[in-house]
Amino acid sequence: MEEQRKRTDISELGEFGLIDHLTEDTLIKRESTIKGIGDDAAVIDSGDHYTLITTDMLVEGIHFDLAYTPLKHLGYKCIIVNLSDIYAMNAVPTHVTVSLAISNRFSVEALEELYEGINLACELYNVDLIGGDTTASLSGLIISVTAVGIANKGKLAFRSLAKPGNAICLTGNVGAAYLGLQILEREKSIFLEHPTIQPELEDHQYLIERFLKPEARRDTIAWFEQHNIVPTSMIDVSDGLASEMLHICKQSGVGANIFEAQLPIHPDTYKLAIDFNIDPVTCALHGGEDYELLFTIDDKDIDEVRYMPDVFIIGNITPANEGIRLTTSSDVTHPLSAQGWNHFKK
Amino acid sequence: MEEQRKRTDISELGEFGLIDHLTEDTLIKRESTIKGIGDDAAVIDSGDHYTLITTDMLVEGIHFDLAYTPLKHLGYKCIIVNLSDIYAMNAVPTHVTVSLAISNRFSVEALEELYEGINLACELYNVDLIGGDTTASLSGLIISVTAVGIANKGKLAFRSLAKPGNAICLTGNVGAAYLGLQILEREKSIFLEHPTIQPELEDHQYLIERFLKPEARRDTIAWFEQHNIVPTSMIDVSDGLASEMLHICKQSGVGANIFEAQLPIHPDTYKLAIDFNIDPVTCALHGGEDYELLFTIDDKDIDEVRYMPDVFIIGNITPANEGIRLTTSSDVTHPLSAQGWNHFKK
Repeated sequence: MEEQRKRTDISELGEFGLIDHLTEDTLIKRESTIKGIGDDAAVIDSGDHYTLITTDMLVEGIHFDLAYTPLKHLGYKCIIVNLSDIYAMNAVPTHVTVSLAISNRFSVEALEELYEGINLACELYNVDLIGGDTTASLSGLIISVTAVGIANKGKLAFRSLAKPGNAICLTGNVGAAYLGLQILEREKSIFLEHPTIQPELEDHQYLIERFLKPEARRDTIAWFEQHNIVPTSMIDVSDGLASEMLHICKQSGVGANIFEAQLPIHPDTYKLAIDFNIDPVTCALHGGEDYELLFTIDDKDIDEVRYMPDVFIIGNITPANEGIRLTTSSDVTHPLSAQGWNHFKK
Repeated sequence: MEEQRKRTDISELGEFGLIDHLTEDTLIKRESTIKGIGDDAAVIDSGDHYTLITTDMLVEGIHFDLAYTPLKHLGYKCIIVNLSDIYAMNAVPTHVTVSLAISNRFSVEALEELYEGINLACELYNVDLIGGDTTASLSGLIISVTAVGIANKGKLAFRSLAKPGNAICLTGNVGAAYLGLQILEREKSIFLEHPTIQPELEDHQYLIERFLKPEARRDTIAWFEQHNIVPTSMIDVSDGLASEMLHICKQSGVGANIFEAQLPIHPDTYKLAIDFNIDPVTCALHGGEDYELLFTIDDKDIDEVRYMPDVFIIGNITPANEGIRLTTSSDVTHPLSAQGWNHFKK
């Protein structure tokens, strides 16, 4: 009798589980490999400094919808999301490569718009576009960007060195990009049903821009450099605050206590969440793509960080056995779980 | 009257024309950028050495057909094609990242096979897999690999420094991978028409392996290192010998004369080309994916290179005004043009 070949569906593992599973046999053979898979960027020893490498793939229909994403914004964003990963290591991005797979429904003029955004991001963030690959695809647009960065030795912020007692800090505000996406999705479905109705986007420019044209927090990294402070851990908020907090806690072997009342939520986010009948705190905890930085700070540095512009202390690292918790405004404590996006689920 | 928006079809420019066009506005701002777009790999100054970066995207249905490509071979090949680009700079690959976009028709077990091939190539070529991204796709499999390498300063081989009088050299043999692909395509179409007929592949193992599981010429780079020789220019043969020769000539501002009788063609390639009623020389000049190295050598080094294992001197660099020519066995001279693959053509 023939043995039945095993078939495990990808969605059973989810994105992070799948990567963990596929790379569990990966061998590190080179002394120059300081950090491989498992942080915002890989770290290579380059003698007197470290070189960082990170890469991200954006797929039409999964990560972006060209019905409401201008190509120039898309080009800008695909660079930003990679730079954000380099900043999240407390490093400075220097170079990018951009590979495209394009179906022939795209015109040269459409690709020119995409490159306008790519070039603009490179210019504003002072990185050089140094290579890539351009090829045909059978359907849609796929963009793969690799960013290279540079860091002083001894200045890197990994995900794995948070300690109990450290303050948990967050830049900017969270949940805005998620609501920006909800508006665009709503207007798209209205348009599909009633093509003559003009979209109502003017009132929501801040939220929409947070989604379509995010920025990376290089100001945060510049501040650390200027004040000679290195976070004990850091990660960028791409999948959602709760999910990122879980990454830090898992890799550092610690717990965390986040105070709901301290979560920075923009007034527009708050207002629209209420209009949409969603809890603003849920948006803040689980909305992705804000590209803010979540980091932890040692006690000795905390007084300086209190004066850091656009940074909020949202909680503190605890021993692992206390778990990862959210303390609500009414002083009730809940366990915090990630509701990361699983693109593989049907 | 509304102005008609211009629409230029991508296929009008072709792959190389499109890249040239899209990146013509690319600014190099950083002093550390030694070479950006336009060679096998980009070159970054890392202090006491150079860091190299190259990236390639493989798209199902365009670059590979899973009807006859085992996933393990595909994983192996996607690493090799990138390492080959690093070797083509006379440098040593050290690290790779692998990003995948996968539709949910792939099982975890299928991806394990792909990673077996990826890990095997990394092991054999002594490179570390240090990162990547895994995401969903709406259709098919897309693989984007970035390779990082290291080079001694003063040892790099660009495409742009070939000089008249230099010998043109080629490793291994060319045209084999192209014929391997033709066999696989033939057996696939026979299978589709007559599913009960077993494919005849045993007689053509060499050619099929050249296509499905190519190797990168690290032996060539090791030989250069050992003999302290640096080619005046070098490129890997991915699109076809003629196309690569044109790249060197264009970027070096020179011409070339290639002798048909000197082209290294494997006996299996020769025999099968005749069976298929194709000119073996056409296969050698225009067949792609051999991943051999094409390089030029200064007069002072030519005597040593004559004794280089598995290397053939196939012609010489001439002044630009003499053009790029093929001298046939009967001493007739033809202009040589590229018949590169244009995946964008319908």
